[in-house]
Amino acid sequence: MATNRRILLKQRPKGMPTLDDFELVETPVPTPGPGEVLVRNRFLSLDPYMRGLMDAGKSYVTPLELGQVMDGATVAEVVASNDAGFAPGDTVWAPGRWQDYAVCKPPPSRPPLRKIDTKLAPPTAWLGPLGLPGWTAYVGLLNLAEPREGQTIVVSSACGAVGGLVGQLAKSRALHTVGIAGGQQKCAYAVEALGFDQCIDYKAEGFAAALAEACPNGIDIDFENVGGGILQAVWPLLNMNARVVVSGLMAQYNLTKPWPGPDLTWLLKQRISIRGFIITDHATSIPQAIGDMARWLAEGKIKTRDDITVGLERAPEAFIGMLHGKNFGKTLVEFA
Amino acid sequence: MATNRRILLKQRPKGMPTLDDFELVETPVPTPGPGEVLVRNRFLSLDPYMRGLMDAGKSYVTPLELGQVMDGATVAEVVASNDAGFAPGDTVWAPGRWQDYAVCKPPPSRPPLRKIDTKLAPPTAWLGPLGLPGWTAYVGLLNLAEPREGQTIVVSSACGAVGGLVGQLAKSRALHTVGIAGGQQKCAYAVEALGFDQCIDYKAEGFAAALAEACPNGIDIDFENVGGGILQAVWPLLNMNARVVVSGLMAQYNLTKPWPGPDLTWLLKQRISIRGFIITDHATSIPQAIGDMARWLAEGKIKTRDDITVGLERAPEAFIGMLHGKNFGKTLVEFA
Repeated sequence: MATNRRILLKQRPKGMPTLDDFELVETPVPTPGPGEVLVRNRFLSLDPYMRGLMDAGKSYVTPLELGQVMDGATVAEVVASNDAGFAPGDTVWAPGRWQDYAVCKPPPSRPPLRKIDTKLAPPTAWLGPLGLPGWTAYVGLLNLAEPREGQTIVVSSACGAVGGLVGQLAKSRALHTVGIAGGQQKCAYAVEALGFDQCIDYKAEGFAAALAEACPNGIDIDFENVGGGILQAVWPLLNMNARVVVSGLMAQYNLTKPWPGPDLTWLLKQRISIRGFIITDHATSIPQAIGDMARWLAEGKIKTRDDITVGLERAPEAFIGMLHGKNFGKTLVEFA
Repeated sequence: MATNRRILLKQRPKGMPTLDDFELVETPVPTPGPGEVLVRNRFLSLDPYMRGLMDAGKSYVTPLELGQVMDGATVAEVVASNDAGFAPGDTVWAPGRWQDYAVCKPPPSRPPLRKIDTKLAPPTAWLGPLGLPGWTAYVGLLNLAEPREGQTIVVSSACGAVGGLVGQLAKSRALHTVGIAGGQQKCAYAVEALGFDQCIDYKAEGFAAALAEACPNGIDIDFENVGGGILQAVWPLLNMNARVVVSGLMAQYNLTKPWPGPDLTWLLKQRISIRGFIITDHATSIPQAIGDMARWLAEGKIKTRDDITVGLERAPEAFIGMLHGKNFGKTLVEFA
């Protein structure tokens, strides 16, 4: 009998997670009940929001209980189905979690299991530009940040799954597009492969001055994935009527005390707006996002890069690496 | 020959202004040049934003130079006119400043001199509900804060010129309307005269707990006139998709070091939006604001209260009192 390896939340991290916070267990492969579908996961998406799941009530997502399997989206293959809409062999997007096999319910359960068209785009794209990171980039930039030709946008985590897409969409709208990333290699990639006008290394000496120099006309949009010291450097450069769209606060998830917020006297003086957003609030925009992103991907207008770790057992290590900024592109685990 | 008393900015305040920061001088009454209009001021509006004028480059308004006459809006009477649009005896709204007489230019100079209809509303109303405070309340609440029936709004400086109007407009839209003010007398006035559902005394022990109790369903809109510790108490009570409209930061104008900003992890979790706004950016909405506010005032749907100090020489004292929250209603100086 096949076994189902599962990675559980063993204990809540204090600050940055460590390998000891996770536990791998082996259980029997579950049997789907009436109306349920059994899938075998092929790729697992690792995303910064998962850090929030590990804390008790601190983040924007409902936390996991201790001993629960780590949450996450997967691309998977249907193994057995008790629902007429799914057949063995179908490739699906699934709320498959950090495990080999998952029992899923078809829609209207949320998040819904759904078939994906691997002719439209390869499987991993459904966890990247056609998945949560793609929707986030699309809705956050195009629907919320009011991009205007010739204005300046700053995108933190510029080579990350969301940031890399935001930069490319911003360039296609003719914005002066400045990325922020950690290290010269990532910065070079952002400019050469993704088309950012410039990319500033936040780990280098004189980061704030370099950012200011890269934005001679100030900053009109900050697509914020990181927060902390990054936002602190962006804040005084914000122009009148600037928009700050907070998609993530990667630098703040592992802090044990809150990072001080931005100075509101500057917000008032500059008529700045800041808004936090979570893509799952914007479900009605997602079909359009998928349609447009798939077309742009097929036309070569969008490039993506995956950072794939092979083997479920290495998911904790890949996840911790991503939180340290060691990934280079969309962080994925491929099931061996 | 008549003299023109003028109150100048003598030195920049360190923190809260003192009487020593102002100087009263007497100069000859000026003569209007070609196309100019000479007015004699009758009422001067004192507003918190003026504190910002006194600092060098720190606020959202262009600072005054030392030795310049303090800026401000007045209701005035035309004394002599070299412009066909104005005649002696006309009552006007003027950028009249802290002085007996002012030479003004008619439109298109900004801010423009303009005739006011004292049959529509008494002169002081043109510095209150039909003036800058009225436009600010109208645009900030109705155009920016998305008021929705049954939601909860918190209004700081609830008896102030702006806050008192915001509360009345919010009640007319059927919001649960909670004021914040300093002292039991103001709180009683906010509830009894202005119709706030509750008003919480921020000077009393247990302010934050009392605010939470007054907002059993959380807070959907914060119309923020004060900032500082007030916003700090509001912040954790904000609901999902709450809107914070920052109209002023009275508690922060006199600080010598910046107040820490709000925690953005909560902003992200709750999908909060914050925006700073300045009414002069919304000029196209002002005619509608004046029309609606005049009608509501005539119908008795809006009540106002003026706090009038008589004598230009007492303007500094009245201004400092207002910054300490000693005013009760719209702060005005009546020229003797």
